[in-house]
Amino acid sequence: MGKKHISPETVKRIIVYCRYLEMFQKKGVKIISSKDVTVFLGINASQFRKDLSFFGEFGKRGVGYDVNNLLNSLKAIIGLEQKVQVIVVGVGKLGAALIGYPGFSKLNIEITAAFDKDFEKIGRKIENLEVLHIKKVESVVKKNNIKIAVLCVPAEEAQKVADLLVGAGIQSILNFAPTYLDLPKNIYLNNVDMASELGSLIFKLK
Amino acid sequence: MGKKHISPETVKRIIVYCRYLEMFQKKGVKIISSKDVTVFLGINASQFRKDLSFFGEFGKRGVGYDVNNLLNSLKAIIGLEQKVQVIVVGVGKLGAALIGYPGFSKLNIEITAAFDKDFEKIGRKIENLEVLHIKKVESVVKKNNIKIAVLCVPAEEAQKVADLLVGAGIQSILNFAPTYLDLPKNIYLNNVDMASELGSLIFKLK
Repeated sequence: MGKKHISPETVKRIIVYCRYLEMFQKKGVKIISSKDVTVFLGINASQFRKDLSFFGEFGKRGVGYDVNNLLNSLKAIIGLEQKVQVIVVGVGKLGAALIGYPGFSKLNIEITAAFDKDFEKIGRKIENLEVLHIKKVESVVKKNNIKIAVLCVPAEEAQKVADLLVGAGIQSILNFAPTYLDLPKNIYLNNVDMASELGSLIFKLK
Repeated sequence: MGKKHISPETVKRIIVYCRYLEMFQKKGVKIISSKDVTVFLGINASQFRKDLSFFGEFGKRGVGYDVNNLLNSLKAIIGLEQKVQVIVVGVGKLGAALIGYPGFSKLNIEITAAFDKDFEKIGRKIENLEVLHIKKVESVVKKNNIKIAVLCVPAEEAQKVADLLVGAGIQSILNFAPTYLDLPKNIYLNNVDMASELGSLIFKLK
C-alpha cells in the first residue's frame, strides 16, 4: 500500500507502539501478543493489527510478535531507524522545555541546535546545547542537512521566522506558536495548539 | 444541532476563530467578512460558515459579522464566557512553561494552582503562582470547584497521579505525559504527544 494512503493517526499510533515496544524491550520481553500492547494502550487488538497491516506481515499467528524485530521494523517505517536531527527555534520557556523533553531522544530524535534572536539567551546553554543567533540558522541547517524545525517563537513573530526557516532549507515545521502559518505547498506543517486542546475539554464539560 | 454531533476539529477551529476575532477586536475592527477571517487562517470561507452554522445564525448576508457579538457568542458556545479555572500538575520544565503560556489567559483560562511532589519545587513561585504539595490537590479542587487538570508529570508517574486527580474530583485531563492513561469512562481526556507530532513529520519527509 502506498505511503500516501497511511493516515496521520496511523502514523502517530505507530510511534506510540514504538514507545511501548521499547518499554517491553527494556524489561527483557522477547515476544508479545497484540493483546499485550493493547492492554497498555487502550487500543483494541484489531486496530493494532490493522495499523501494522499497512506496512506488511509482522508476527506469527498463535506465537506473537518478536519485540526487537517489530520495533526495528516500525522505526524504519517512520524513518527513525537512524538519528533524526531537528532544530528548535525560539528558546523561551516552551522551547527550553522541548529541548529537554525526554520523549524525543527516546525516539532517536536529536535536537542538534537551538536558536533565538535575544542576545540575553544567545550563548547560554540549555541541556548542554548552546543557544545560537538566528542568523546562523541557514549555515547550521545546510551543514547538517537538517530538514525539521520546531518553532516556539511568539505568535506575532512566527510567520517571519517560518519564512526564514523555509529559505534556509527547512522542509517541515512543528509549530507551537498559536497562529496560522502560510507556507509553500511543499512544506509540511504540524500545529500543536495547547489552548485549543484545553478549550475542547472545556467544551465537552459544558 | 446537538452538542454531541460537533466534532472536536470544529471545536478547535472555533477556538482559533476566537483568537482571531480578539485580534480584530484589539485593532478596533467592528465588522468582518468570513473572508477576512479565513485569509488569516488558511481555512476557506465555506468551512468557516459551516462551522458557525452548527451553532446558529451569525452575520448578515452582504454585511458581515459583528466582531464583538460573534466573539462573545463563540466564547459562550465553548464555555469560555467566564473565567475557567485549571490546575497544572507537575512543574518540571514543561509544566512551568505551560503556566506561563500566554495562549491560555487570552482565552479566559486561568491556571489557579500548580502542584508537585518534589520538595525542592514546593513553595517556589512560577509566574506568581506558588507551587503546592500534591497532597493539597483535593482540597484546592473541591474549594474552587475545579474540573480540569493539565498533567505534566513523567510518564511513569502519570497513571498514579491521574487516578489521584480523578479521586479529587477532576473531570477532564489534558495529558502531556507520553503514556496511555486508563481512566473511568466519564472522564474526558485529551493527549498532547509531542514526539508523535514530530514523528509524523519525519514520516512525511521520508
